[in-house]
Amino acid sequence: MRIKNIGLFGKFNDHSVADAVIHVKSFLEKNNLDVYLGHTTSSQIDGMRLENQEKPPNKLLDLSIVVGGDGTMLSVARKLSKFGVPAVGINLGRLGFLTDIPMSNFESAISSILEGNFHIEQRTLLKCKVVKDGKKVLSSMALNDIVLSKGNMGRLIEFSIHVNDQYVTKPRGDGLIISTPTGSTAYALSAGGPIIYPDLPVICFSPICPHTLSNRPILLSETDKIHISNIEPNEFPPNLALDGMMLMELDGSEIIQISRAKRKLKLVKSDRFNYFETLNNKLGWHG
Amino acid sequence: MRIKNIGLFGKFNDHSVADAVIHVKSFLEKNNLDVYLGHTTSSQIDGMRLENQEKPPNKLLDLSIVVGGDGTMLSVARKLSKFGVPAVGINLGRLGFLTDIPMSNFESAISSILEGNFHIEQRTLLKCKVVKDGKKVLSSMALNDIVLSKGNMGRLIEFSIHVNDQYVTKPRGDGLIISTPTGSTAYALSAGGPIIYPDLPVICFSPICPHTLSNRPILLSETDKIHISNIEPNEFPPNLALDGMMLMELDGSEIIQISRAKRKLKLVKSDRFNYFETLNNKLGWHG
Amino acid sequence: MRIKNIGLFGKFNDHSVADAVIHVKSFLEKNNLDVYLGHTTSSQIDGMRLENQEKPPNKLLDLSIVVGGDGTMLSVARKLSKFGVPAVGINLGRLGFLTDIPMSNFESAISSILEGNFHIEQRTLLKCKVVKDGKKVLSSMALNDIVLSKGNMGRLIEFSIHVNDQYVTKPRGDGLIISTPTGSTAYALSAGGPIIYPDLPVICFSPICPHTLSNRPILLSETDKIHISNIEPNEFPPNLALDGMMLMELDGSEIIQISRAKRKLKLVKSDRFNYFETLNNKLGWHG
Amino acid sequence: MRIKNIGLFGKFNDHSVADAVIHVKSFLEKNNLDVYLGHTTSSQIDGMRLENQEKPPNKLLDLSIVVGGDGTMLSVARKLSKFGVPAVGINLGRLGFLTDIPMSNFESAISSILEGNFHIEQRTLLKCKVVKDGKKVLSSMALNDIVLSKGNMGRLIEFSIHVNDQYVTKPRGDGLIISTPTGSTAYALSAGGPIIYPDLPVICFSPICPHTLSNRPILLSETDKIHISNIEPNEFPPNLALDGMMLMELDGSEIIQISRAKRKLKLVKSDRFNYFETLNNKLGWHG
Repeated sequence: MRIKNIGLFGKFNDHSVADAVIHVKSFLEKNNLDVYLGHTTSSQIDGMRLENQEKPPNKLLDLSIVVGGDGTMLSVARKLSKFGVPAVGINLGRLGFLTDIPMSNFESAISSILEGNFHIEQRTLLKCKVVKDGKKVLSSMALNDIVLSKGNMGRLIEFSIHVNDQYVTKPRGDGLIISTPTGSTAYALSAGGPIIYPDLPVICFSPICPHTLSNRPILLSETDKIHISNIEPNEFPPNLALDGMMLMELDGSEIIQISRAKRKLKLVKSDRFNYFETLNNKLGWHG
Repeated sequence: MRIKNIGLFGKFNDHSVADAVIHVKSFLEKNNLDVYLGHTTSSQIDGMRLENQEKPPNKLLDLSIVVGGDGTMLSVARKLSKFGVPAVGINLGRLGFLTDIPMSNFESAISSILEGNFHIEQRTLLKCKVVKDGKKVLSSMALNDIVLSKGNMGRLIEFSIHVNDQYVTKPRGDGLIISTPTGSTAYALSAGGPIIYPDLPVICFSPICPHTLSNRPILLSETDKIHISNIEPNEFPPNLALDGMMLMELDGSEIIQISRAKRKLKLVKSDRFNYFETLNNKLGWHG
Repeated sequence: MRIKNIGLFGKFNDHSVADAVIHVKSFLEKNNLDVYLGHTTSSQIDGMRLENQEKPPNKLLDLSIVVGGDGTMLSVARKLSKFGVPAVGINLGRLGFLTDIPMSNFESAISSILEGNFHIEQRTLLKCKVVKDGKKVLSSMALNDIVLSKGNMGRLIEFSIHVNDQYVTKPRGDGLIISTPTGSTAYALSAGGPIIYPDLPVICFSPICPHTLSNRPILLSETDKIHISNIEPNEFPPNLALDGMMLMELDGSEIIQISRAKRKLKLVKSDRFNYFETLNNKLGWHG
Repeated sequence: MRIKNIGLFGKFNDHSVADAVIHVKSFLEKNNLDVYLGHTTSSQIDGMRLENQEKPPNKLLDLSIVVGGDGTMLSVARKLSKFGVPAVGINLGRLGFLTDIPMSNFESAISSILEGNFHIEQRTLLKCKVVKDGKKVLSSMALNDIVLSKGNMGRLIEFSIHVNDQYVTKPRGDGLIISTPTGSTAYALSAGGPIIYPDLPVICFSPICPHTLSNRPILLSETDKIHISNIEPNEFPPNLALDGMMLMELDGSEIIQISRAKRKLKLVKSDRFNYFETLNNKLGWHG
């Protein structure tokens, strides 16, 4: 893979991000690379014209560099996966699982990648479709997790889970996290889920504060088709969130259909990267 | 304690509860007891005039009988504790921790209590005061728990906890449950808290899905003064719930002050009652 | 698959098992099947000569029926997997995950299987090799789990884990459970591990009472090569158990090598069988 | 409290401990204090005669200083509590919950204590009596915990728990930890128990890897009388450990009686000490 055209993503309206992006852009251009900026809203920084992120990254992009944190990567991952553009993340704060190059010495890390010292990890995304009265009202994707939760209230929600048309269970509690291996170290971990090596072909169900104490996390195949239905209405509407962003409030009549997305996110990992080292650092195991 | 005046509480607008209450009332009157009905809204059942629950139960009440489930007991417990009236619960469904007399043979159980075969358990209540811009904006009580939670959103909340003016920690996650021993078998149990024998002089902090995995439940003295402050505002307002009922949304500038309420709830327990037997039944230990 | 030769396994020295085996044998013979008995020690029941289980089941066996509980299935699984004989389990007590036909109506269930109403589940086994001073001192297989534990003492053990020659972590605690999906509902579940759908190509690490609270269960690929080494010697020797049977005590100089076994256990499942229904029953979710 | 006679404890056969003890001794003597050394075995260090720890510390001791780690404090705590001597701990490594003065600047901390800037924490100890065939075969004390565990094997143990002659439950699993608040941050924490503020009058039961997932930690009163009986014999004998030291192997016919010890350990805490700060440090909450 020869790298020439690079997409550069970040939340530019944050000044510290904008500064970092300019710094990275200038480094890349010095290396004779063509850089295309992508963002949620069109704006100007120091006279540069920023392309609107709404315009999909050109298929000819060879690599995308995301500057920010894991949250920024989550928000651009869907777009990138759609176009098959591999991505790498430069982190401005504490290293993340997705953005694992520190800003402090990004030059060395990016140079090494440009020289070919990397491998590509294929990360599964989940597709979430909400059907109501027989009509699709929503369809979106998640890299980390799809979360059904009780919303703005103190009471339990209850709903039915089917997998490949087989009834699984009708859990009661604060909700359910359906996560990819990528998402296993995010919200699911706080809810009691296991750590899942990123390339495993599995999906994890983690109940949130389940009423029945034996309602434990369940690992299923990433090829399984999940249906959530019979969501019991309550005083406050339950809600559905993807990758930590609220998607919609539910009235209980919806059917939520979850399956593997067709394309995977291609994550560029430096050959220096070691997943277990990241785990040790992020979870304080070395302590 | 000689029992003559009995308060009878229930959610009368539910027909099955109303029928049960009439049944219990008739049984009590046959036993020459004076019965006073209490409810949230004044209404009529078969020609009976129902006193408004807003009017505090007469101090001369010797005993209150709550017909319904643990939820009903929670909603009347505050009122009863204020006037020092002991309470007993008749459960219409599956036995609860607070309402432990089954409707199916309430006559025998109530008769036994009227004959003096009971003891009184003192249950701690928590007082929750919300202060904003130096003014008290809210004050209420909880028998089970006070819950600060992230509200209608997928993101973490963060806040500072002080106990007796000492800084404790600044947890991040879905929120925090501050529970009494009575509440230890309710929401706190689902969040990973321990089972606490009902008369212990302790309060339990159970973090909800904490980001830091070592943020575990903490037991403190019931005499401790708890302050929660620096609640970080977010896209959606966090909220505060007492005994599962949402109390208010927060904007982050509030200080939440929690301490033991002056009075305890007097819970009448049949001498037949055995706490551990209830645990075995409710938690399926006999399995 | 035409079924003619059947191996029949059970712990015959238990009279109730022996009676059940005779009952099953007689049923099978009435159905014109050839039955071969297998057991750990040669003995006589009602004049029948029991083949020694040490003699491997003839390769011509078409099906093995295991009478007993999940423990019995675990102990014969290795042998059966070696010869590729599919197995089905009749349970004499409470239904198990592996022995899911109740003795009470085994005739109907076995008849249905003989008519072809079944499917075969491939269950992964783990191979465990212990190397000391460069020499292999032990090699065995497990269907549920391989457990390294602190042995007869109150202190922590500590050891290093490598996966595919990459250092993972050096956990301290009571030990480690390395389980297959089949074993996920056994010991690993008690130690905090997730439920894993039986056919997923994964291995699960569940630390036992880890000192570092963020040492959580980890899911790896079943193709990964695991090495455990630097086991710190202590007052009492740690030990190694496979499927709940103690295999050996360790002095700390050993290297434990774990990998997927070449063959899988073929488990015959009636088409009536539903994994999620079994979970609901065994874990009391319907409660 | 005027401090004149000081007992100095440490595991002298470890050279680094012996050096530290000599250092502390010399500092104390320069401050005109009388120092008495206590140890498990009589020995010589640089010509000093070390009193045998078997000889109980003189009742006239005003303060005991324990040099080492929390383990050393655990092993001398029983003796000190018997004689009512208050104790303080100097830690040679990473700070502990019981030994909270760092060796690096012990002079300043000890001087401050000698000037009266301290308070005394009363720590509950548990008494453990083992009765067999109606005779007491063993009696000992624990500051952290009493642990009944399955011993050297892969199988479950099962036993009955009674509290104040009431049947509680018959758990199955790897065993049970009965801990004081002091012990709540030790083994019990790894088994899922809560953190308990040190002066609360409670005892905690934490099941170790329980078979029934709803067998959760239980908090009881420190005045409760606990009986463990009907310990089911198994292939390998279960065992009983106090404060991490194995006490005896069991054959199943024993009755284990646990109650609060008459005396408490008096722990001297510098007024600089803050329990929550220690929790933050030890559990990595500041992360």
